[in-house]
Amino acid sequence: MAPHGEGSDASVEAMVAQVEKHPISSILIIIAMQTEALPVVNKFQLIENPHSSFPKGVPWIHYHGAYKDIIINLVWPGKDLTFGVDSVGTISASLVTYASIQALQPDLIINAGTAGGFKEKGAAIGDVFLVSHVAFHDRRIPIPVFDLYGVGLRQTYSTPNLLKALNLKTGKLSTGDSLDMSPHDEASIAANDATVKDMEGAAVAYVAELLKVPAIFVKAVTDIVDGEKPTAEEFLQNLAAVTATLEEVVTQVIDFISGKCLPEL
Amino acid sequence: MAPHGEGSDASVEAMVAQVEKHPISSILIIIAMQTEALPVVNKFQLIENPHSSFPKGVPWIHYHGAYKDIIINLVWPGKDLTFGVDSVGTISASLVTYASIQALQPDLIINAGTAGGFKEKGAAIGDVFLVSHVAFHDRRIPIPVFDLYGVGLRQTYSTPNLLKALNLKTGKLSTGDSLDMSPHDEASIAANDATVKDMEGAAVAYVAELLKVPAIFVKAVTDIVDGEKPTAEEFLQNLAAVTATLEEVVTQVIDFISGKCLPEL
Repeated sequence: MAPHGEGSDASVEAMVAQVEKHPISSILIIIAMQTEALPVVNKFQLIENPHSSFPKGVPWIHYHGAYKDIIINLVWPGKDLTFGVDSVGTISASLVTYASIQALQPDLIINAGTAGGFKEKGAAIGDVFLVSHVAFHDRRIPIPVFDLYGVGLRQTYSTPNLLKALNLKTGKLSTGDSLDMSPHDEASIAANDATVKDMEGAAVAYVAELLKVPAIFVKAVTDIVDGEKPTAEEFLQNLAAVTATLEEVVTQVIDFISGKCLPEL
Repeated sequence: MAPHGEGSDASVEAMVAQVEKHPISSILIIIAMQTEALPVVNKFQLIENPHSSFPKGVPWIHYHGAYKDIIINLVWPGKDLTFGVDSVGTISASLVTYASIQALQPDLIINAGTAGGFKEKGAAIGDVFLVSHVAFHDRRIPIPVFDLYGVGLRQTYSTPNLLKALNLKTGKLSTGDSLDMSPHDEASIAANDATVKDMEGAAVAYVAELLKVPAIFVKAVTDIVDGEKPTAEEFLQNLAAVTATLEEVVTQVIDFISGKCLPEL
């Protein structure tokens, strides 16, 4: 069967091309946890939008504000209505990315958050990575082609000037819905050649590609997956300090973006 | 922080209560694979809606038609734009469930599809289950309360009369993004007390609950997970025959629903 909506690619490309000629005017920051989001919200004095376009009853929170010449939207999926914890993971990330793109039509998405890092690949606590590629490590479908769909390897929007200017580390990100790492996950993460591991990135990338919005991924290391300490303990211990670092880097990214067109990044 | 959108629950409940007093007039069938969807499409002579409310460029397909006094919407997430295979798994299922509810405001969701079954729990090839509970088996987050969020155990919309009238088997469904089963998945599936295993159900249930739409789950067994044959091989071998059975049961479900209000199911 022919792809649905064929013929739309040309118009989308024209739209992207038009955006590329103008300075970035609107960004969408997707952050999974409140602890990660609040430092950025406070830094840019973003305010909660009580009239967001999200359906009634969902816990998703839209913060917004202006900084220099950019409208900053920050969306956090909020606290789960049943369990009261941050709505982490790929499903919530996919839904808020989809709904936010539909409502806000951003020029660029920044998925910022904490991640586990592999010291064997050069990651240390507090490092901030600008991600080159994303893939999933917990979608194993051993049928030809479905296997590749499951892994979902994607290159992120390329920003060589940003990478150079901020002197960030770069590496590949592997995404899965578990905080721990099973032997099967470990094998897949190794196959994905990942330096950092999170619970949302590849899902945000999937939706961004589906709706043709460029996306970049800023991930700060809270725990060393191939280290001595248990992931959950190390993650909770470093969360506050690392989210402060994450806010600083997100600020630098936005400062760099300001006044620039997409191809200048 | 207080839940966002509080105060909306009352109006949603009022809406559901109103729907409950009238015969079901609109259903939404979510099916992940074309092979599973087409028998139902053909049976009810559904036609593709070329003017669906979905964003341009997404591969999601909306079929619709009328049968007796019910508007039947069937949404299939389509073929992945990069890899050309069915967009299986929780992310696509979540997105199409969300977008379809927003566009179509159905009275009831039916997630129909194939599943792996556990013979130890009484499942056999070709069995069709009406699911009592759903949970995830690949979202391990070993932090208090986050662990429960990850598992995401939910009771499905209760339909005791439907279950009795159609003489279906019932059991719990466990959902994950892999077709195979790692030892960690196996332990979680056992903890979920699951009789059947799929790749979408708990995600559809999550979104349906988020948007307050009742959802039921009809799952037909293509392969025995705790049997001799490799899952992928057995799945592909039985897919065509089992999808024919699935269509028959979906037809019986719709025939039963016709003319009834939600509490009569």
